[in-house]
Amino acid sequence: MSKSIDFFFDFTSPYSYIAAERIEAIAEKGGRTVNYCPTLLGFIFKEIGGGPLTAMPRKGEYSLNDFSRTARFYDLELNFPKAFPANTVMAARAALMVKALQPELLGRFVREVFRAYFVSGQDITQASVIGVCASAAGVDANAALQANDDPRWKDALKAAVQQSHEVKMFGAPYFVVDGEAFWGNDRLDQVERWVKDGPF
Amino acid sequence: MSKSIDFFFDFTSPYSYIAAERIEAIAEKGGRTVNYCPTLLGFIFKEIGGGPLTAMPRKGEYSLNDFSRTARFYDLELNFPKAFPANTVMAARAALMVKALQPELLGRFVREVFRAYFVSGQDITQASVIGVCASAAGVDANAALQANDDPRWKDALKAAVQQSHEVKMFGAPYFVVDGEAFWGNDRLDQVERWVKDGPF
Repeated sequence: MSKSIDFFFDFTSPYSYIAAERIEAIAEKGGRTVNYCPTLLGFIFKEIGGGPLTAMPRKGEYSLNDFSRTARFYDLELNFPKAFPANTVMAARAALMVKALQPELLGRFVREVFRAYFVSGQDITQASVIGVCASAAGVDANAALQANDDPRWKDALKAAVQQSHEVKMFGAPYFVVDGEAFWGNDRLDQVERWVKDGPF
Repeated sequence: MSKSIDFFFDFTSPYSYIAAERIEAIAEKGGRTVNYCPTLLGFIFKEIGGGPLTAMPRKGEYSLNDFSRTARFYDLELNFPKAFPANTVMAARAALMVKALQPELLGRFVREVFRAYFVSGQDITQASVIGVCASAAGVDANAALQANDDPRWKDALKAAVQQSHEVKMFGAPYFVVDGEAFWGNDRLDQVERWVKDGPF
């Protein structure tokens, strides 16, 4: 089995959406798989400080332009959601259920949720939206919705947050490859070289 | 006369050092010149909050590794200075003197100062070090040293800081091309496309 690229993200992170669209091709070039690790940035920020980019002086205004421009740079569509940031607990629990029970569908489900939020402007805090994303990814919609109240996936999300603390995550997207951490969509160029040519 | 890429930086910024080594080639590909704009990040942070990356929880430790790895990614040497951050007032005043009186030597002087700090580990708060950098760039060392006490270059630095506020700078390096702002060494890929192929 090939080694993985651990990809930590929160569904409310714009640069994580962009990274989610790019990472499979990058992993493939290096013969790696992608280990999708949904987590909750709010608990990271609670621990070490920080908050949404869009709320920061000067950087907030810049970021709104940069999200869209960076998407265009990669030929991706991005329509910044009116409701931002979003509570992503339900989406993350559903993703962790898919990860445990139908891992082969996880990448597709992750992208469906990101696109619902960052392309179609849907409200991913709504069960109906998560259900549609699940169906589109081949996941049973009812199972995805029930994940939100199932102690197994509640616990899985707590464990996921704990794991993101353990890898010293401080922002999203955050990648760990062979124990080496890379932060940001803009570090995927370095991740690509790392998995293709080895450590540098 | 070709249009410029405005390159705002502080001599104590590691990613600005990396950008300074890359930007001439990028500008050339797009038929642009580089307008070097030394400024003082401290006054930016005083206005909007913020501080050295290295002081931030988790991000600090990550950054120390990322500075070196990112330098290697671009085949550059980087030895993180023992004294960090540095007071860069003297270096900036000298650079602004060169910018006004011998602009054709400015890029070289800027790179000499960055290399003294980030490659050779020299103390760029010392007049002797700035003098050596000046000589290496073909600038009169005494003139560079006297810049620090000359009201013209004191005023020029105040104006430079004011200008960085006006372009809404919030971190370094910061680029402005055709009125469009790009933040970070990692945005030079987008700057390159912008100057080669136009806005996107």
